[in-house]
Amino acid sequence: MKHATTAYKFRPAIFTATLLFVFSISTFAHADGNELRVDGKRLNATMQHMKTFGINEAGGSNRVAYSGHNKDALAYLSSLMLESGLAPQIDVAGNLVGRRAGKVAGLAPVITGSHIDTVPNGGHYDGIVGAMAAIEVARTLHEADYVTDYPLEIIIWSNEEGGKTGSRSINGSVGTEEFELPSLGDKSLGDGIRFIGGDPQRILQNVRKPGEVAALIELHIEQGAILDKEKLSIGVVEGIVGIKRWNATIDGFANHAGTTPMDQRQDAMYAAALVIAKIREIITGEPGRQVGTVGRIQAYPGAPNVIPGKVTFSLEIRDLDMAKIDRLFGLIQSAADAIADNNETEIRFDHFYSSPAAITDERFKKLINDSADELGLSSMHMPSGAGHDAQSLGGIAPLGMIFVPSKDGTSHAPTEFTSAQQITDGANVLLQTIIGLDEILN
Amino acid sequence: MKHATTAYKFRPAIFTATLLFVFSISTFAHADGNELRVDGKRLNATMQHMKTFGINEAGGSNRVAYSGHNKDALAYLSSLMLESGLAPQIDVAGNLVGRRAGKVAGLAPVITGSHIDTVPNGGHYDGIVGAMAAIEVARTLHEADYVTDYPLEIIIWSNEEGGKTGSRSINGSVGTEEFELPSLGDKSLGDGIRFIGGDPQRILQNVRKPGEVAALIELHIEQGAILDKEKLSIGVVEGIVGIKRWNATIDGFANHAGTTPMDQRQDAMYAAALVIAKIREIITGEPGRQVGTVGRIQAYPGAPNVIPGKVTFSLEIRDLDMAKIDRLFGLIQSAADAIADNNETEIRFDHFYSSPAAITDERFKKLINDSADELGLSSMHMPSGAGHDAQSLGGIAPLGMIFVPSKDGTSHAPTEFTSAQQITDGANVLLQTIIGLDEILN
Repeated sequence: MKHATTAYKFRPAIFTATLLFVFSISTFAHADGNELRVDGKRLNATMQHMKTFGINEAGGSNRVAYSGHNKDALAYLSSLMLESGLAPQIDVAGNLVGRRAGKVAGLAPVITGSHIDTVPNGGHYDGIVGAMAAIEVARTLHEADYVTDYPLEIIIWSNEEGGKTGSRSINGSVGTEEFELPSLGDKSLGDGIRFIGGDPQRILQNVRKPGEVAALIELHIEQGAILDKEKLSIGVVEGIVGIKRWNATIDGFANHAGTTPMDQRQDAMYAAALVIAKIREIITGEPGRQVGTVGRIQAYPGAPNVIPGKVTFSLEIRDLDMAKIDRLFGLIQSAADAIADNNETEIRFDHFYSSPAAITDERFKKLINDSADELGLSSMHMPSGAGHDAQSLGGIAPLGMIFVPSKDGTSHAPTEFTSAQQITDGANVLLQTIIGLDEILN
Repeated sequence: MKHATTAYKFRPAIFTATLLFVFSISTFAHADGNELRVDGKRLNATMQHMKTFGINEAGGSNRVAYSGHNKDALAYLSSLMLESGLAPQIDVAGNLVGRRAGKVAGLAPVITGSHIDTVPNGGHYDGIVGAMAAIEVARTLHEADYVTDYPLEIIIWSNEEGGKTGSRSINGSVGTEEFELPSLGDKSLGDGIRFIGGDPQRILQNVRKPGEVAALIELHIEQGAILDKEKLSIGVVEGIVGIKRWNATIDGFANHAGTTPMDQRQDAMYAAALVIAKIREIITGEPGRQVGTVGRIQAYPGAPNVIPGKVTFSLEIRDLDMAKIDRLFGLIQSAADAIADNNETEIRFDHFYSSPAAITDERFKKLINDSADELGLSSMHMPSGAGHDAQSLGGIAPLGMIFVPSKDGTSHAPTEFTSAQQITDGANVLLQTIIGLDEILN
């Protein structure tokens, strides 16, 4: 794990020595920063070492939040932080926070980081890329003696996969009742937070008000196949989509499948099929990147020889524009009502989950895009269809997100994969973005 | 329960006395028979008494096969049989059989009867109408000293609802492995048969060869709403439909519902919806009384935020014509293949159940129809969409079935209902049919 020197690391020093007399101090700092590069070999070595904490027989990761593997990994990350000039500490929500002072007094911090907890039998990249890259960025700055204007906080958020507990502690939405809930491991959330060194009773200490965070930048794997298919290096995230979910219930009349003529049926299954087909038609019926999904379905009583009297299914719609979600749902609801009427059934949609969209900052998108260009990396703008810790800080800080490709779009599985070069590229974009923020935020 | 005399019962006696010198002995017997009527009040009183064996709080019946209630009811039926001049005995399969000698030596018996076991929380008419009417018919013949040419067997079949065990013992299809299977009650089938007095190890003694039964006539409730809606008294059953069932499996690719664009999905749920809608279109796309049903469905992994990678559902098709079932299935299969192709999914149908159609005898249909006409009862020809004990004797004996209305088509529920008059009407058609068989079978 010790890669003390690289060709990259000393290049800026030579470069800045050459230009020392040409630029002002301020300009000098930026020229220096533009040439900084992470140590990709070192970064990927830390990625490899992270696999050891919770790897299972399938080659996947069982490093669920608040497990022993999770705690051991945090100890390793603390040591990396110390080597990177960061002062690591576990906050009340179980987040591992490493702070680095800024050059200008009184500025709110720039936060970057991600999570290292996984789903059961998950992969080794979701969250981990952004977490390890954030530490590597700090280490690169530390070793180059490069101090940003804004203080930097590297945060490894706790329990992202089980409900974004760590990042949500910042916006104050973690209710005390959540501590009694089971985590993805064998502990309650409260016991889990305590196990890794947090203090759930004092969780409100984590809350930050708008303006108390200068910027939140997260690097993450795409978890979709767009970059992989297009063979692009960097996704400039336009925002994290909003999500709304409903349970649909169609009430018909359960009846004998042999004795009930086709024209006398109130078949909830047939009506459901028409509605599900219509959902696809409506979602794809207009331009945009909105998605709509029916992931769960059940027919009652559920026997091959009984016409279903009731069918329930889930509907989920995601888009960056919450108003568009509502409008599409309205279209679906009207179409479903008409289908139900035509089939002597009744349909209702019960809304049960909502997650607001978190739009990224225009200036940050340009900065990320420009950083990729400067590094010679191809990129495209895209929404994040998945949720991320970053969205927990929406409304508190301007957000920026950087995506790197996921092979075949696979995620939450042992076969999740992003190549070493793609990770290094993403980390360099993160580094350049963090450096570039000094100019943009002023 | 003792209604010794009715206006009806003595009418034939008066009538035959009047005509005694006009007709020959043979004709006399028939004229006598034509005027015979069951004692409807008595019949419906026995129906009422049957409710007491296993009635539950919901007003339904828990008289599942081989339960104590079932056994108690059989004891009551044995006493009724004795009063009706029948010699009751339990056969090796647990059927209660009451025999009545015929006038002509060497003839195979005419069998009539049905079942008295119910589904859990079932009703008081499914099976019971045909069972009680059969005994009432025998009693009516007994009290009128009317002897048919053919011997008569009144059979109360065991375990119709749990697999037609009793009637299937006649065609030899009850394998010994079935005795280990659970019944609808708390016993295995083997223990259940022994409990009510049968001897499963000797079940093959029940097998009868083609020609060993002269006719099988069953009276039953329709279990559909056709007669009720049309306000008709009698259904002349054209046959018991054949049934084929398949499990359909659609394989797509499970993926993240947020990160997978609509045009990159291999959504097994969407493909399933299109196929289910198409099934209805194909089944109703041509004339006839065929029915097709999708009663069961499951999506995998079954979460609102995951595009289903697999969906399974059941398909059942019923019709009197097995070739038509196969042809319709072929159309469905072709259409489903095309839908699967269009959606980058794969579909396969695994056939798992088949029940051959049992067509009723043309002469019997005419006899039942004429009997209804003579009685001044409205009737229509119709298939039986449900399975019945009668079908177990298909290929062994010519079959006849008589339907009486089911209110709202409800069956297998406490609200199952057929009125006293409708039951009496059905029993009189059964009586006249049994009597008329002497002429038809010669």
